[in-house]
Amino acid sequence: MAVYTDVSAEELGQFLAAYDVGELLSYKGIAEGVENSNFLVHTSRGYFILTLYEKRVAVSDLPFFLSLMAHLADHGVTCPQPVKRHDGGALGVLAGRPAAVINFLEGMWPRRPGVAHCAGVGQALARMHVAGRDFPMRRANTLSVTGWRPLFEMARPRAGELQPQLAAFLAAELDHLESHWPGDLATGIIHADLFPDNVFFIGDKLSGLIDFYFACHDLLAYDVAICLNAWCFEPDHSFNVTKARALLNAYHRERPLAAAEQRALPLLARGAAMRFLLTRLVDWLNVPPGALVKPKDPNEYIRKLRFHQGVSNMSDYGIDGWEGASAGVAADAG
Amino acid sequence: MAVYTDVSAEELGQFLAAYDVGELLSYKGIAEGVENSNFLVHTSRGYFILTLYEKRVAVSDLPFFLSLMAHLADHGVTCPQPVKRHDGGALGVLAGRPAAVINFLEGMWPRRPGVAHCAGVGQALARMHVAGRDFPMRRANTLSVTGWRPLFEMARPRAGELQPQLAAFLAAELDHLESHWPGDLATGIIHADLFPDNVFFIGDKLSGLIDFYFACHDLLAYDVAICLNAWCFEPDHSFNVTKARALLNAYHRERPLAAAEQRALPLLARGAAMRFLLTRLVDWLNVPPGALVKPKDPNEYIRKLRFHQGVSNMSDYGIDGWEGASAGVAADAG
Repeated sequence: MAVYTDVSAEELGQFLAAYDVGELLSYKGIAEGVENSNFLVHTSRGYFILTLYEKRVAVSDLPFFLSLMAHLADHGVTCPQPVKRHDGGALGVLAGRPAAVINFLEGMWPRRPGVAHCAGVGQALARMHVAGRDFPMRRANTLSVTGWRPLFEMARPRAGELQPQLAAFLAAELDHLESHWPGDLATGIIHADLFPDNVFFIGDKLSGLIDFYFACHDLLAYDVAICLNAWCFEPDHSFNVTKARALLNAYHRERPLAAAEQRALPLLARGAAMRFLLTRLVDWLNVPPGALVKPKDPNEYIRKLRFHQGVSNMSDYGIDGWEGASAGVAADAG
Repeated sequence: MAVYTDVSAEELGQFLAAYDVGELLSYKGIAEGVENSNFLVHTSRGYFILTLYEKRVAVSDLPFFLSLMAHLADHGVTCPQPVKRHDGGALGVLAGRPAAVINFLEGMWPRRPGVAHCAGVGQALARMHVAGRDFPMRRANTLSVTGWRPLFEMARPRAGELQPQLAAFLAAELDHLESHWPGDLATGIIHADLFPDNVFFIGDKLSGLIDFYFACHDLLAYDVAICLNAWCFEPDHSFNVTKARALLNAYHRERPLAAAEQRALPLLARGAAMRFLLTRLVDWLNVPPGALVKPKDPNEYIRKLRFHQGVSNMSDYGIDGWEGASAGVAADAG
């Protein structure tokens, strides 16, 4: 739940006058997302989402994100599209914040993802990876393997407040990840934050992807690993191999995972768990008193990390052979 | 900002199947209101507001509120109307909470109310008072003069944490209010919480009133006093006599204030300030650690109370004679 910056009707009306969206009729702050302030805006032309970009988003990155959404939408990935102003720009300033108007995407994020949702997200992720191939802009992943040690150093002195011996556990894992992280896998545009609240469905049918504000260049299979963690564990923290199989098979049908990617997946999943564990841990240790946003629990990702430490190959993720293909052939397709 | 209870698409879809609202397409938690959880719901039939009633609202009061909204809408007051289920009922249960679906009202609440907004709210308040005359249900005001002492006793031991000597100041004021509170003024249905965020406008034109969850039977002029406090003070806490004049004149044109109501208004305004001061003070002293909702500042209402203590008659509220009427005649109209 998040509206950090409120906006008056007068200033919103003035802001919208630069867009071809008609007359302002109503707007309401949306209790979704934790990074930015979002409003659902109704005008005489329809419904739009207004986003005011808050502290965590670098202004210099916004052209990348907005151009990427437009590119992906042009290439068949259903995602919100920035509405252009009369002068052709997509980014404006409102209430002292960078701001954009994007079109409204129907659908609901699944509070309890099922197997069909996992298959949907696997397919959509692969299509996004393919659609991103010829996107010309680049953005490095500041939260990939080289970004984890600074986060760990911030959290290390007080990590024991969450679990005894957590600092030692994380130090050893980080050493392992840094020395084994693969450098030779396929790279491209990744979403990097494709959690259930960023994927909309109507019934079991995926209706779109949202929130590209962590998108960047990185290993494509690392994005798959993030999704395994975000979609395939149950509320009791057990790994659901049926969901993983559905997600991976659906991905593989659209963009076959190379043999090297499959071999690396358990390590990438450990890394993906480490990344969310560390940002959650830093947030959890630094909640200001009276904070409006409740921090997410880092423990969930400690358990996920431990699970992947015990995984040796794709079989533990439910894949002994790809559906509808001979395992050997598909596995080595590029 | 408030979504206390989240809802899954599956359970919302099942809940909505009892209403004639079509297929669920999307829903988003709204970051408005602090008492209940609200969602903006889009279906194939249009947009609706779904409210889950949380702790502060008594289930036994809900039929009163929902019937009142329907009654007022039938009598020309633009306000949300409960959508009836196939079985005729308006109140259901969702995620373990009492829940209702109401129609969507266009408009925006004024973040910086101007004189025209104050005139609009004065007129709408009077029309609501007139429209409520033949509403058959009753609900006592638990937050009127007899309800203040229990709140004061809750806050008294720690009131000094807000301001030194606050407890003594409140005790003396409460004695005065209890001994001078009028018993002979016109009563009827009052909104009792008509703050700017509960009044929608499109431009300067009022488009509707919302949030009737404090509505009750009480002195009609007390509702006017609540609005004086809510609408006619500037952010720097100064009283804006031009706004007060606009609000009172607009009210008086629709429902003339009797001479006794005019004489009582400064006292009623002190009482209205006391009521919000006390609930804010109790909330402020009892914020749980890590609370999601930031308490409103009680100091604002201490200043308002002190202002009204210095008021002797309607002239201090900008009324030396009613616009478009001879003061003597209008003042004694009932």
